[in-house]
Amino acid sequence: MNKSRVEAFTDAVIAIILTIMILEFKTPESAKLSAILSQVPYMISYAVGWLFIGIAWYNHHYMFTKTKLVTRKIFWINNIWMFTTSFIPVATAWVGRDLNAQGPEIFYAIVYFFWSFAYVILTYAIAKANENAGHKEIAISIRHMKIYRALTSWQFVGAEIIIWVLILIYIPALQMVLITFQVLVVGGNVNEDSDKLFE
Amino acid sequence: MNKSRVEAFTDAVIAIILTIMILEFKTPESAKLSAILSQVPYMISYAVGWLFIGIAWYNHHYMFTKTKLVTRKIFWINNIWMFTTSFIPVATAWVGRDLNAQGPEIFYAIVYFFWSFAYVILTYAIAKANENAGHKEIAISIRHMKIYRALTSWQFVGAEIIIWVLILIYIPALQMVLITFQVLVVGGNVNEDSDKLFE
Amino acid sequence: MNKSRVEAFTDAVIAIILTIMILEFKTPESAKLSAILSQVPYMISYAVGWLFIGIAWYNHHYMFTKTKLVTRKIFWINNIWMFTTSFIPVATAWVGRDLNAQGPEIFYAIVYFFWSFAYVILTYAIAKANENAGHKEIAISIRHMKIYRALTSWQFVGAEIIIWVLILIYIPALQMVLITFQVLVVGGNVNEDSDKLFE
Amino acid sequence: MNKSRVEAFTDAVIAIILTIMILEFKTPESAKLSAILSQVPYMISYAVGWLFIGIAWYNHHYMFTKTKLVTRKIFWINNIWMFTTSFIPVATAWVGRDLNAQGPEIFYAIVYFFWSFAYVILTYAIAKANENAGHKEIAISIRHMKIYRALTSWQFVGAEIIIWVLILIYIPALQMVLITFQVLVVGGNVNEDSDKLFE
Repeated sequence: MNKSRVEAFTDAVIAIILTIMILEFKTPESAKLSAILSQVPYMISYAVGWLFIGIAWYNHHYMFTKTKLVTRKIFWINNIWMFTTSFIPVATAWVGRDLNAQGPEIFYAIVYFFWSFAYVILTYAIAKANENAGHKEIAISIRHMKIYRALTSWQFVGAEIIIWVLILIYIPALQMVLITFQVLVVGGNVNEDSDKLFE
Repeated sequence: MNKSRVEAFTDAVIAIILTIMILEFKTPESAKLSAILSQVPYMISYAVGWLFIGIAWYNHHYMFTKTKLVTRKIFWINNIWMFTTSFIPVATAWVGRDLNAQGPEIFYAIVYFFWSFAYVILTYAIAKANENAGHKEIAISIRHMKIYRALTSWQFVGAEIIIWVLILIYIPALQMVLITFQVLVVGGNVNEDSDKLFE
Repeated sequence: MNKSRVEAFTDAVIAIILTIMILEFKTPESAKLSAILSQVPYMISYAVGWLFIGIAWYNHHYMFTKTKLVTRKIFWINNIWMFTTSFIPVATAWVGRDLNAQGPEIFYAIVYFFWSFAYVILTYAIAKANENAGHKEIAISIRHMKIYRALTSWQFVGAEIIIWVLILIYIPALQMVLITFQVLVVGGNVNEDSDKLFE
Repeated sequence: MNKSRVEAFTDAVIAIILTIMILEFKTPESAKLSAILSQVPYMISYAVGWLFIGIAWYNHHYMFTKTKLVTRKIFWINNIWMFTTSFIPVATAWVGRDLNAQGPEIFYAIVYFFWSFAYVILTYAIAKANENAGHKEIAISIRHMKIYRALTSWQFVGAEIIIWVLILIYIPALQMVLITFQVLVVGGNVNEDSDKLFE
């Protein structure tokens, strides 16, 4: 029952973070249809942000559906994770002004890094708490999530850092493509039993 | 249970989209009552947006109450549908500056088109998933929704496109009337058992 | 179950309307403490708006807890009621710039009038639907709510209109006092069984 | 059941208050990464605000999980408490412009004071209502919450006022440190059974 209140609170915060991003979409002063084209960069950045947070929510939801307990520690790490998520709209807005500007893209990467870090810690804490409480199979299925395995694999993270740094130096705009790709392949590729949770 | 979490998340997003539209209602600088008249175009556009999203929520709610399962695929199409819905406040704000300006009205029509498309795909996916799971009667009642039958009838869509193009060329402001009419007649005219769902 | 989804949706919309009012509270450019004094008029208007919507939520909640059914009609009237409520932040913002300016105060009165009208229709529809479904005692206790009895009493409404017009002509700022008074005495004075609903 | 609706409403309001604080985080005009450094003061103030409201939510949640009843009086005091909470984003925004400016820091202290006051009254009312209804053990465990004991101890409040005044006079920026410290030590230090509520 209390798990559901933490879920509801998290859902509300994520829903607001997701939706306030549209406030950054400035309607043009001019009434010419072509004036909206100036918003195309933000539209791209907005779509990436929406996809990112959507996948994050999905994985979070999977994890919380599985877990048998939400300790105070988990609650706090969850809060920190939401805190890092709340910077996505800021990074999205800044990047959306010029997709190929290095400064904003580096800022986005920093936010992304902290977000990933908080997410890994959250997954770790949830798996651990379930393990300690004797729910080994839950701990295993949570640790088996592709997003967690990728973010805790040194090969993956190492390769990622190299690609990321190269991109940010030479073609910052490619970061949006990289994130989209990664979000779809890593985050979108959930455990096979995820569909059953919805049925 | 998880269906209810997806519903709750959707409700939160739709409620925010609905409500942030009021932020675009600028209080006049002047303290004269007549100064509010400059906001009348936005007020009209706001009322249309509210009606539109209200009806959409109603039909969505009907569909989700009926469905026995929410698969990952449905979750994602639902997300895309919410994404298209999130552009309604932008289109509403732009159109609200000048109801008869062609550019914003065309933008609104584009948003409306993508929104309709996402909605049809969502309905299709939900009906299909229920059919595959052996709930034929649910699939039938979902496919029987007027909004779905209209949007998948080539006569209807064909006629609509012709009217729409003519309106956008000659009297853009008429689009708001057309949407209101369509929303009330097509979206508001739900299946007969819809009242029972509420009782 | 579906009643609870309409309730949840309404709660989300009302919570957002309530909270976005704080966005209008502009932090002063200056870093002097006295600079915040320029926000005192808005602070008063904000407090009145919060009290108003808080009481409205309470009465709405009472009504929805009692009702056995939420028909499509009730859903729509509820939507219209939320639509009128969404203008409270606008009126609050405008009045908050100058509490004694006639224009904004008249606008507030107009919003208040439409809001009251929508609320009365909503109460009427809920009571009627319950009566038709054979729940007479529910219909009676809903019609017995002080806010409904006041707003449907011609003596009360007549006296109110006279006082209101006089105030708006001579001392517009008094409207905030009048609303506070009315909200506390009429809206705050709920049926005796209201406490039991919470226990 | 109705307790849960008040909880849900509160959660929505708190989630919005928490999340709209990010709107104050202005993306720099410039596309230089260093431009984001101008937002560091707000980032600190934002982190403190998030921590503060997060802990407040936790304690509120603890209290509401325990209480057997939510009377009308409690509902109203809860509303007043949310009202005071809604000023945190304003104080956070103002302080975030210049962490060492005395004016904004004093304003923050005033908000903090009213907030604490409302919180104490809320705790008192909830404990009292449970005591009157014969749930003595609930009343005791609520009164036993560290945040309540601290805020009702004259030694603690006395010492606090002296430290606070000294800080505001000599090094206003230290207030953020003081609040962080206090929030973590007093608010974060909940009753031992709090973890069980989540399991």
